[in-house]
Order: sequence, then structure tokens, then C-alpha cells
Amino acid sequence: MAMKRVAASALRAFTSSGNSTSSLLTRHLHASPGSKKIVGVFYDAKEYAAKNPNFLGCTENALAIRQWLESQGHQYIVTSDKEGPYCELEKHIPDLHVLITTPFHPAYVTAERIKKAKNLQLLLTAGIGSDHVDLKAAADAGLTVAEVTGSNVVSVAEDELMRILILVRNFVPGHHQVITGDWNVAGIAYRAYDLEGKTVGTVGAGRIGRLLLQRLKPFNCNLLYHDRLKMDPELENQIGAKFEEDLDKMLPKCDIIVINMPLTEKTRGMFNKDRIAKLKKGVLIVNNARAAIMDTQAVVDGCSSGQIGGYSGDVWNPQPAPKDHPWRYMPNQAMTPHISGTTIDAQIRYAAGVKDMLDRYFKGEDFPPQHYIVKDGELASQYR
Amino acid sequence: MAMKRVAASALRAFTSSGNSTSSLLTRHLHASPGSKKIVGVFYDAKEYAAKNPNFLGCTENALAIRQWLESQGHQYIVTSDKEGPYCELEKHIPDLHVLITTPFHPAYVTAERIKKAKNLQLLLTAGIGSDHVDLKAAADAGLTVAEVTGSNVVSVAEDELMRILILVRNFVPGHHQVITGDWNVAGIAYRAYDLEGKTVGTVGAGRIGRLLLQRLKPFNCNLLYHDRLKMDPELENQIGAKFEEDLDKMLPKCDIIVINMPLTEKTRGMFNKDRIAKLKKGVLIVNNARAAIMDTQAVVDGCSSGQIGGYSGDVWNPQPAPKDHPWRYMPNQAMTPHISGTTIDAQIRYAAGVKDMLDRYFKGEDFPPQHYIVKDGELASQYR
Repeated sequence: MAMKRVAASALRAFTSSGNSTSSLLTRHLHASPGSKKIVGVFYDAKEYAAKNPNFLGCTENALAIRQWLESQGHQYIVTSDKEGPYCELEKHIPDLHVLITTPFHPAYVTAERIKKAKNLQLLLTAGIGSDHVDLKAAADAGLTVAEVTGSNVVSVAEDELMRILILVRNFVPGHHQVITGDWNVAGIAYRAYDLEGKTVGTVGAGRIGRLLLQRLKPFNCNLLYHDRLKMDPELENQIGAKFEEDLDKMLPKCDIIVINMPLTEKTRGMFNKDRIAKLKKGVLIVNNARAAIMDTQAVVDGCSSGQIGGYSGDVWNPQPAPKDHPWRYMPNQAMTPHISGTTIDAQIRYAAGVKDMLDRYFKGEDFPPQHYIVKDGELASQYR
Repeated sequence: MAMKRVAASALRAFTSSGNSTSSLLTRHLHASPGSKKIVGVFYDAKEYAAKNPNFLGCTENALAIRQWLESQGHQYIVTSDKEGPYCELEKHIPDLHVLITTPFHPAYVTAERIKKAKNLQLLLTAGIGSDHVDLKAAADAGLTVAEVTGSNVVSVAEDELMRILILVRNFVPGHHQVITGDWNVAGIAYRAYDLEGKTVGTVGAGRIGRLLLQRLKPFNCNLLYHDRLKMDPELENQIGAKFEEDLDKMLPKCDIIVINMPLTEKTRGMFNKDRIAKLKKGVLIVNNARAAIMDTQAVVDGCSSGQIGGYSGDVWNPQPAPKDHPWRYMPNQAMTPHISGTTIDAQIRYAAGVKDMLDRYFKGEDFPPQHYIVKDGELASQYR
């Protein structure tokens, strides 16, 4: 079984805590037993950083924990420069203790980086989704990986409902007409529908999937869900969705499919050419989960042929999406950069969640159990 | 009191009905007592007309009532050409009996046109909203004006919820980044919010407003409504919205305002410079009702200054919106052409509703009471 680096460290941190004079004195030393080097990788906000005091998830505002960390003698390095052998992140890999990053601008934590990171103990995701980490390598190295479970589930579920409606209503070409000086109602209306009466299936009905189903209920749709587990009958009845044990029996019934699963070795490439060919012609797909659940080219081909009537999501492989990513140019897409989980409200919640976990880490306390992705060398169940 | 042209006509129609041989013989004569000249003004679908068999609301498919009308000996002229003294519609004004049009491509029925239309008896709106008709002139001339009440209320309410989310999430600049090859999460996220916890007020809580409130309920917002009448307590409790008797007390509380009133002399220009100045800074406004409820320039100024944080709707003044309409070019708009009520599902419903009213008109029967806008020289209550 893997060494528990974090446990040993927490013990050291714990024994050195409670002495604020000492902490203040060691603020600039970075080598005292209790002092940690914490690196945060976020997106740059530049001119936008000052536009909203609650815009916490960017490099400039850095979750608003700098003063708190530094007042306890810790070092806090923040950067958006995360790719390639000469990036800012790479410089700090050999001696950082904690790496914080987000799904919106993820620091990819490979087995190679983990090997180099001799002091690394803790990987925190400010948000939800830790697939940017090689979780097996992290488990083997005895690291702890945790995220702020729940911090942006409402944000993502709301965004999914927006994307369903955007596709069902054919909003994007309508708005495009406005900005290009055009007016052609027919060019929009010939494939604009009500959501009412349509069959919506969610692949995965965890926290986000359930919140989506609850919000869909008043729309009078036919709601289906596929998951490893059936909900308890009371919840299922309250949500008004029908369990489908066999994914491939559910999918061809759906007018609209929403992806609500983590990216794992089981779900990677799940929507490939063959599976897409078996969907209802003109199906609408919303995917705010992870892009690699889809076969990139199969989605392009489906949108081009009309087999997929519309595709919307905010997740890309890789991120940031390169300028020549084919999803930027395929027809009937309503894509955005990765934003659904980084609303201002979500940022306030995940900044607070990261601060709480750091505080517990310094004190040698456990995190809330639902936050762990890797603990004591073991992956959380959904990643196994 | 105004002459009841329609009643006399219905009587003639009634006495000549039930004789299909005679009807078939008079099919191309157009002058027999029971034969009517019906003109439909719709938008052209061109290449889109054949793309969907249920795309009924365009000139090409013309509500799918041509065969039915002609088999009864009526003449059915359909056009999209509706403006100016030499347009196709103008040619038929002197002798048409029935004019059917839609809010999406409205035939404007002015007092002058009513004066010229000596045979006109019935004005039907395929959809909801008859403000394209000079209702007072229509009432004075003894015409009947009716619409397919309820035919697209679900369609419009769903679309309003989409627009609320599009504004709250700052979707449009996000999508714009995708198509321009850009990636700047911060440029979207600094003003993207959850809908949860925000205060949403609807100005008007008729059918559409209530359907919107019902769909908003699971989003855990603070829901307010202003209307002439308070809902009965049971419905209010079920919807979870609070009645605000005084509009100007409600508006400054709202993060999001949705307009759900007909255009009348009372509501025209209601959102002028002064009223907009009193709203919460950065307020989001959704208006699928009618554009003339807003002062056009005051909306442009509000969006430019940031007093209005976002404006979305599908209604314009006039329609089609000219290429230089300033709402096309103002910042933070998420506009489309007039499409929310012309989904394929709505088209099926309003085509059926128009056919039913024509059938009743030919038979001299009353329409469903909620469909009347002008009956027996009297305006429906919401237009008074």
C-alpha cells in the first residue's frame, strides 16, 4: 500500500500549529516544518479582475486566501502558466506541498509530474472534477486528492437546462441573424420546438443530474435516467423520472441526451461513432461533464450529417481549446469555453471550500468525506 | 353601436352551407353568397418549407388549410408582401372577407385599411397578440378580432426561461469566443451568476407569466409578480410567487424583470428613461411581449451605460426589424427575430385553432370565448 505522505505532513503541521508568533516569524522562510508551499493554477482575469469583488477564481484574486495563508507563514504561488517544460508551474513542481487548480483552466497532473513532486501531499480542485489528475499515479504515491463536492452542482445543472432550451429553440442561428442584420424567421422556426412533451434522458443521475431533473419537472417532459444505482422510490417519484438500467435501451428513446458522468476509464470515448449512429436522428446532446466522454470526430461527423441535431456544452479536450478545434467549426453547435461551474456564486462557494480543506490540512483534520477523490491510496468509488 | 358585419355574414354562410355540390361548383367563382375570400399573411419559408412536414406557419404551407378551404368553395390568397401601397396584401384589401396573420410577420391593419376593406368581417391572429390591428377602428367597424389564445403560451414561457438563463450566464459572449477562435473564461465569468437566489419579477401574470413562474419554482429564486389581479391564494401558494400591487415598488427589487403584458395604450412606452433609471443597477430584462412597451432608445442607453446588464427578447418595433435597428448593435443584448411563439409545436396548435374558428365562422357559430379580442364592437378587457 502507498505511503501516506499527507498523514505524516499533517502530523507535522498539527504539532507546529497554534503558535501564531512562530507562524508570523516564519512567513518568509518557507522551510520551517509547518510552512507549506502552495501553488494555485487559475485562469488570468486581467482587466476583468477588478470588475467584480467576488470574482475569486482567477490568478489575480486567487480565491482570496493569500493574506490568510501568508499570515500563517505559508508561501502561496499563483500562475496560469501550466503547459510545457518551461512553464511557471513546472518550476515549482519539485518543492510544492499543495497544488490547487480548477477544471476551467486545469493544471494537468501527470504521473511524470507526480514523480518529480517529492514534497507533494495534497491536490485540491477548486470546483468539481479531478480527471486532470492521473488518479492512479496519485494514489500510488500516497497523495490526497479532493474537490469541493457540491460547490457548483446547481450552477452546472442550471446551465444544462439553458443549453437544452438553446438547442430545442435553435437560438444560436436566431441571434446570429440579429447581429448580421438579417431577419428570416423561417430559417429558425423550421426546427424550433417546445421542450414540453419531449423525451429527455440523463446519462448519470448524481448530484447534477438530479438537480437537472428537478428543474425539468414542470416542463412536462418524459424524463429518463441511467445510472449505476436506481434512486429510492420516494425520490424517483418526487423527481418524476424513470430509471433505465440499460443505457443502450434508453439512448434511442431520447430527443435530448444530457451527459452527467465523471470521466473515467469506463466512460472515456463512450459516445463513439457506433453509439451515436444508434441515437434518434436529430438528437440534441448537452455535455457539461467532460469532452473526452465523446469521440471528438464522431461528434463532428454527427453534427455535419444531421444525425446529431445540435450539440452544446462547455467542456473541451484539451482545455483551453486550440483555435483549430473542430467543435468550434461544426454546424449546430452551441458551445462556450468551460464556464458553467465558475459563476460568481460558485466561485464564492468553492473558494470557501478550498480554504476549509486547507485549514483542516494544516490542523491535521479529515476533510468532509464526500470531498475525497483519492484518500489513503484509494480512489473514490465513481473513479474506480 | 357598431354594425355587426360578421353576424350578418355568418347567417348567409350558414344558410348556404351543407350543400357540398354547390360549394364545389362555386369553387372558382368567388362571388357566391357562401364563398369567402380569405387572405393569409405569413412569413416565407423558401428552402425551409419542405424541410419539416409540420412547418405550417409559412406562406408555402399556409396553415395546411388550403385544400379544406377550397373544397368548400372559398378563395385563399397567401402572401408575405404586406407593406406599402403596392404590396400584394393591399390589392386584396377591398374585397377580402377574412384576414389571417401572425405576430411573427404581422399584417398591420390600420384604420385606413379597415375603411378600405368593405367586405372585411373577421381578423384572425394565428398565435397570440393582436396589437397589429387598430382595435378601436376594428370595433367601430363592427369587425370580429380573435386569436388562438393558449396556442403558444408554453412555447413563449419556455423561451423566456431560456433567455433569463442566457443573460444570467452571459452565454452570448461565451459562444462568440468559440466561433472567433478565442478562449477567455474570465471575460465571461466575471459577470456570470447562478439563477438560484436571485429575485425575478414578472410584469403581468396571465397565462404566460404563470407558466414561467411555475417553471422557475425549482430554481429557488425569490419570485414576484405584478398584475391587475392577485391570484387566488391556493394558486399563488402553489406557484410560490409574491403579489406586488405597486409596480414601481416591485421593479427596484428585481435582479431580473420579465415583461408579460399585452401592448395597450396603457403599457406603450411603460419602460421609459425614468423608469429604467429606477431599476437595480445591472438589471436583466426579458421581453417576449411587445417591443413598444419599451422606449427603444432608453433600452439602448441603459445597455450602453450598464444600468441594464442584459436585454433579451424576440419582439421588435417594427417587424421585421430594419437592418439599422439599434437593438441589433447595443451591448449585452441576446435578441432574436420574433420566434418564441412559432415553434413547430405551436404552429400545429395555432393552425388547428384557426381552422376551428374558420369552421365556426362558416357555420355561424361562436368561437371559444377566450379567443375574442373584439366581439360585438367591444374590446376584450385586457385591451381596454
